[in-house]
This record gives sequence, structure tokens and C-alpha cells, in this order.
Amino acid sequence: MKVNGRPYRTVWMDDESTGEFKIIDQRWLPFRFEVETIRTTEEAAAAIKDMHVRGAGCIGAVAAHAMYIAAFESEKSAGKIFEEELRQKADFLASTRPTAVNLQWAISRQLDEILSQDSISDGAKKARSVAQQIADEDAEWCNRIGQHGKPIIEDLAKKNPGRPINILTHCNAGWLAFVDHGSATAPIYAAHDAGIPVHVWVDETRPRNQGARLTAWELNQHGVPHTVIVDNTGGHLMQNGMVDLVITGTDRTTYTGDVANKIGTYLKALAAKDNEVPFYVALPSSTFDWQIRDGVKEIPIEKRDGDEVSMMSGLSDRSGDRETEVAIVSPGSEVANYAFDVTPSRLVTGLITERGVCDANETSILNLFPEHKK
Amino acid sequence: MKVNGRPYRTVWMDDESTGEFKIIDQRWLPFRFEVETIRTTEEAAAAIKDMHVRGAGCIGAVAAHAMYIAAFESEKSAGKIFEEELRQKADFLASTRPTAVNLQWAISRQLDEILSQDSISDGAKKARSVAQQIADEDAEWCNRIGQHGKPIIEDLAKKNPGRPINILTHCNAGWLAFVDHGSATAPIYAAHDAGIPVHVWVDETRPRNQGARLTAWELNQHGVPHTVIVDNTGGHLMQNGMVDLVITGTDRTTYTGDVANKIGTYLKALAAKDNEVPFYVALPSSTFDWQIRDGVKEIPIEKRDGDEVSMMSGLSDRSGDRETEVAIVSPGSEVANYAFDVTPSRLVTGLITERGVCDANETSILNLFPEHKK
Repeated sequence: MKVNGRPYRTVWMDDESTGEFKIIDQRWLPFRFEVETIRTTEEAAAAIKDMHVRGAGCIGAVAAHAMYIAAFESEKSAGKIFEEELRQKADFLASTRPTAVNLQWAISRQLDEILSQDSISDGAKKARSVAQQIADEDAEWCNRIGQHGKPIIEDLAKKNPGRPINILTHCNAGWLAFVDHGSATAPIYAAHDAGIPVHVWVDETRPRNQGARLTAWELNQHGVPHTVIVDNTGGHLMQNGMVDLVITGTDRTTYTGDVANKIGTYLKALAAKDNEVPFYVALPSSTFDWQIRDGVKEIPIEKRDGDEVSMMSGLSDRSGDRETEVAIVSPGSEVANYAFDVTPSRLVTGLITERGVCDANETSILNLFPEHKK
Repeated sequence: MKVNGRPYRTVWMDDESTGEFKIIDQRWLPFRFEVETIRTTEEAAAAIKDMHVRGAGCIGAVAAHAMYIAAFESEKSAGKIFEEELRQKADFLASTRPTAVNLQWAISRQLDEILSQDSISDGAKKARSVAQQIADEDAEWCNRIGQHGKPIIEDLAKKNPGRPINILTHCNAGWLAFVDHGSATAPIYAAHDAGIPVHVWVDETRPRNQGARLTAWELNQHGVPHTVIVDNTGGHLMQNGMVDLVITGTDRTTYTGDVANKIGTYLKALAAKDNEVPFYVALPSSTFDWQIRDGVKEIPIEKRDGDEVSMMSGLSDRSGDRETEVAIVSPGSEVANYAFDVTPSRLVTGLITERGVCDANETSILNLFPEHKK
């Protein structure tokens, strides 16, 4: 999507370059936009580990690019044992964020592709094209989510002519978390780009403020009208007819339609139900968990560092574009930081996937993804 | 309640002193505990206007004390026309926060009491005793709320022996907002002081963080176990059996039981209902609105300055005990700041008042307060 009027992805290779790729270093957003050039496996590992990039789709694509760099380095240092060196680098990259499923998946896929080639040189060439392909696939899946979700907004626009459609979203399931388009934001961008008037209520999303920082920045850069609100606000807005539609992303969705997503999503789903506002979840099908039946009982919820609750980072007057951290909780009080919650399927109007929209229940999901029927 | 092991009120006069009173200057909490001595009408007006004190009960009591100072000043400057001067000072004090109902009420009551005396000197004496009486009444009402609410916690403790009762609260309806005890916190303090084990989940309460700053500080000082959470968390906790009871305060409650309170209260009420967690609202009956029937439709919701959303204040490493303000929203994005929401009576288990507990409906409320039957 656009940054400063120019289309960007979160990770890319320039046509003319070899042995390097570029990422948006998201650590400095929203106060500074910085592109980083990655030239070594070590730099790639640091970018993943130190969260220059985040979000499942984005991490997977960056890992695929990192494996291209690893193969390229092996080609240059020819004489060493190619396979052993490459496997070491793959393990090193995989260790940066051990729980990121997309990371592991992209690295194995690249390793298989490279090792199936006859020479180091062919392997590096292949890795470059596979990295490109993995990024393109991620972007294409999100693009399809956008195309399948757009008619939902279009229908609301037809029923409410002459005013923008108000869409509430929580956290950042935007293009910064993928390669392009995003999941929850994809239908919004698709509608906006098709000239349908939209306005987005952006939940701040405490404790890490991904809404106020990333979603707001994304929408602002692409020119989508939006307003940042504290997480407490959505219920009041829905009660007063100021929200037409909720769309969120998801970190894991059971094949029965229960949705694990950023903490607070469940509260918005309850308010949507209470006020008859449609509540959609957008996801690439890689996010489905085909094993878990009861999301509320079975999905483990990560408890993260309490400092995310008790400290807040932002720009102070005197700090230029470097952030200052301040303590915001009464000293001596305990804090707890649950990262996700689970929205039961009964509160979900529908799931927007790359194959189309389905209801949030086992039958409807397995009809769209019959290869997962047992 | 206790601060540094010693009982305090938010406003008081020392027995031996004349012509002055003391307040806790709440602007510096939770990072600094400071007592301010007020010696002139101007100082009292500044304390109210610049929010050294806040909360309906606390403001009313401070205004009553301010009127004592005004009368005391008139006594000292004898020779001027007593009544005219006093009325001017009363108007001046009343103008500091024109929408605070308790402020206006306390000032008129004092004015009537002082002017019914035969001399300036008797008027000042009377004002001192009425100020004391208004503070005592506020404390006593909150004390009764605590005594009426305590059995609710006690019953839960009997049903769940051997573990603390988990109570969630939103915003600060604590003793800092009144003279002592608080409203939502009164049953909690009463239970804790009676040896019933309680643990409080304290909602941070964005955007002004009264939970993380004031409620957490209060509970910590009084020794009540508690944990600060972001506002997004309550739903997850309730889903997982980690909340036994919700108690909040209210800014205005209709005689039909609809509750206007800090933004986000409605979302917690929805989660409580969805998980069969009792949701109580604690209030002195002065908070009832005897005119409004439909809270959601009729209670106007204040929109406040967007800076409360986009800026955050806290302690930085280098700042000692002075707070630093940082910008936390993506620059260029709109923000909106709705201060309150309305929880419909159907989500409220009961109202805890100084006269007892009643259901959140017209019949039950008017049975407890028959003088308001039409």
C-alpha cells in the first residue's frame, strides 16, 4: 500500500540488486519511516529477532528472503560444504522466533528448494525466485481477502447512501503485518480504492498500541479516513449507531470458528452482538487450527511482560524522533498482561478468507476447505 | 482510608487550627503524596478549578470548607458588608467548575447557614461546623454503601472458601473521589477490613488512567491485594472464571436503573452478563437522576479534548518525581474522546446505595427512595 504517495511492500528486492533485500524497519513507526537493506544472514536474523518486522505473513516472507541471502553467501564462499553451511544458517534463522509458525514453514520450504538444485549457484538463483514467490503468494492471498470482503462494505454503502461506512478494527491486522494489503484492512483498502466512502474507528489496542501506532499510520499514509479511539469506546459507538461493521484479524481460528485474537477483541464482539452490528474476522487460511475444537477452553493464552502495561513509549517534546519511555502505573502495584482472548464463534458473523466468506462454524468452514475434512 | 499506615480523608481540618483546612493534592498521585494547606478563598478556588481535588463527593466537601474560609476572611476584615462580600466569594467558588452539582449544592447550603446567623463571627463558627458536617455526611454515606455491599462479598467468600474473592472495578470510584471509603471501593474496603480475603482487578481506564493511577494507589496504600490490567482484559478474565464480581461507580443513574459511568463500563457489563458474573453499581443516592427515563437515549455524553487520547503522562527515568508527557498516536491521525457510556439496566445486577441494595429498575429504586415517587 502507499507510503508518502508511493506503493510499498513490507519486504522486497530491487530488480537490479543481488545479495540483498529491503524491509520497512517497523520499530520506528509511526514517528519515523525507515527502509533497511539486509545484506547478511546475521542482519536478517537480527531483523526478525529484534522485531524490525512483525506479523505472521511479514515474518514468513522475510525469512524466505533471508534464506536467499544465506544461499547467496554460500555461493560466494564456494569451497565450503554447501549443504552443511546452509542447514546451520537455516537453524540459526529458525531460532530467532521459535514460536512463529510461518517462519519455520518458509525456511523449510526454501531449504528443500535450494537443496534440490544441482549446484550452489542454481540454489541461490532458485532461492531468489522462491523468496519472491512466497512474498507474492502472501500479497495475493491478502488481495483475495480484500476482494471477497469488499462486497460486504459495498452492500452497506448501498443501504446507506451519502455517508461513509464506519468500520471498527482492533489491533493491527494491516499490510504491515503481511507483505501487502493486510487481512482485516484488505477489504477496507479494496473498498476505499474502489471509491466506496469508508471511515475507520481505530482501537488504540493497549497495551502495545498497535492500533494507534501502526493501523493509524497505515491508513493515514494510504489516505483512508480514520479516527483513533481508546479501547473503551467501541461499545458506546455501537450503541449509538456509529459503527456499521467490525472487522478484525486473528492469530488462530479453530475449525469450529472460535477466534483467538488480540486481547479485547471478545469485548467488541459482545458489543457488536448486543447492537446487531456485523462482526467479521479476516484471515488467510494458514491461520486455521485444524485440530482444536473448543477455542475458549483449549487455546493457550500467552502472558507477556508486565512492563508492556506499566511503561508507555512515545515522543516527548525534546526528543526529536527518538521515543521516551514513561512509567504510568502506581508504583508497587502488581500488573498482569494477557496478550490474547478468544471470541466464541456464536459472536462471529463470518470469516473472510482467500477462498471466500463463510460462516463461523465447522460445516461452513470445511465446505470452503474440504481438504481438511477428516 | 490509610496512606503510609495512617488514616486519611481527602479533606479535613486539624482540631487546633482556625482559618485553614487541608486536602490531598491529587495532581501528583500516584508518584508523589502531597498535603496542601488552604488558607484563602483564592487558594480554595484554585484547588477546585485546577483539579487538586476531583470526584463529586470530594469537590462538594472541599467547597463547603472553602465557604468556611470565605466566612473566616469576612470576619477578619470586619467593617465591610458581610453578606455582599460572602455572596461574591460564593459566586467565585461556584464558577470554578460550573457543571459540578455537588459544588453548587454545598455552596448554597453553606451560604444559607452562614447568613441565618446573627453575626459574622457566629457565621464563621457555623460554617466551620457545617463544613465538618458535610464531610462527615459524605463519609457516612460511603460507609453505609460499604456496609450494605459487604454481605455480597461475604456470601461469595462463603461459597468459595480458601481463596480470595476477585472483584473487577473500572475507573476510580474510590475514597479519593469522596471524603472517605469511596463508592465502588467501599464494599471492598469493608470486606478487607473485616478479614474477608479479596483481590481487585483494576482496569487501567484509558484515556485518563484513573484506575492505574488512583485506584491502584489507594488499594496499595490500604493494603488491599490488587492487579492492574489494561481495559481490554476483563472479558478474558471473566470467560476463565477469574472474576467473581464487578463493582463500579456511576456519574449519573436514571430512576429506571440505566447507569452512566466512565467510558468502557458498558463493555464490562456485557462480559459480566455473558459469563454470569454479578455486576453491581455503588452510588450515594445524590447520583440518581429522578427525571431521565431512558439513559442510553437521553443522557448526553461529554466529548473531551483529544489530547487525553494522544498524549500520555508518566515518570521517565531522569525526571525524579515530575511527570513527562509523550505523544503516543500516529501523527496526522484524528482522535475522538468520549468520556462516558451508558450501561442499560438489563445488564446491572443491583445498585448498592446508602439505604441498601436494590434491583436496577424503577419499582425497586422507588421502593428504596419513596420520596421520589411521583
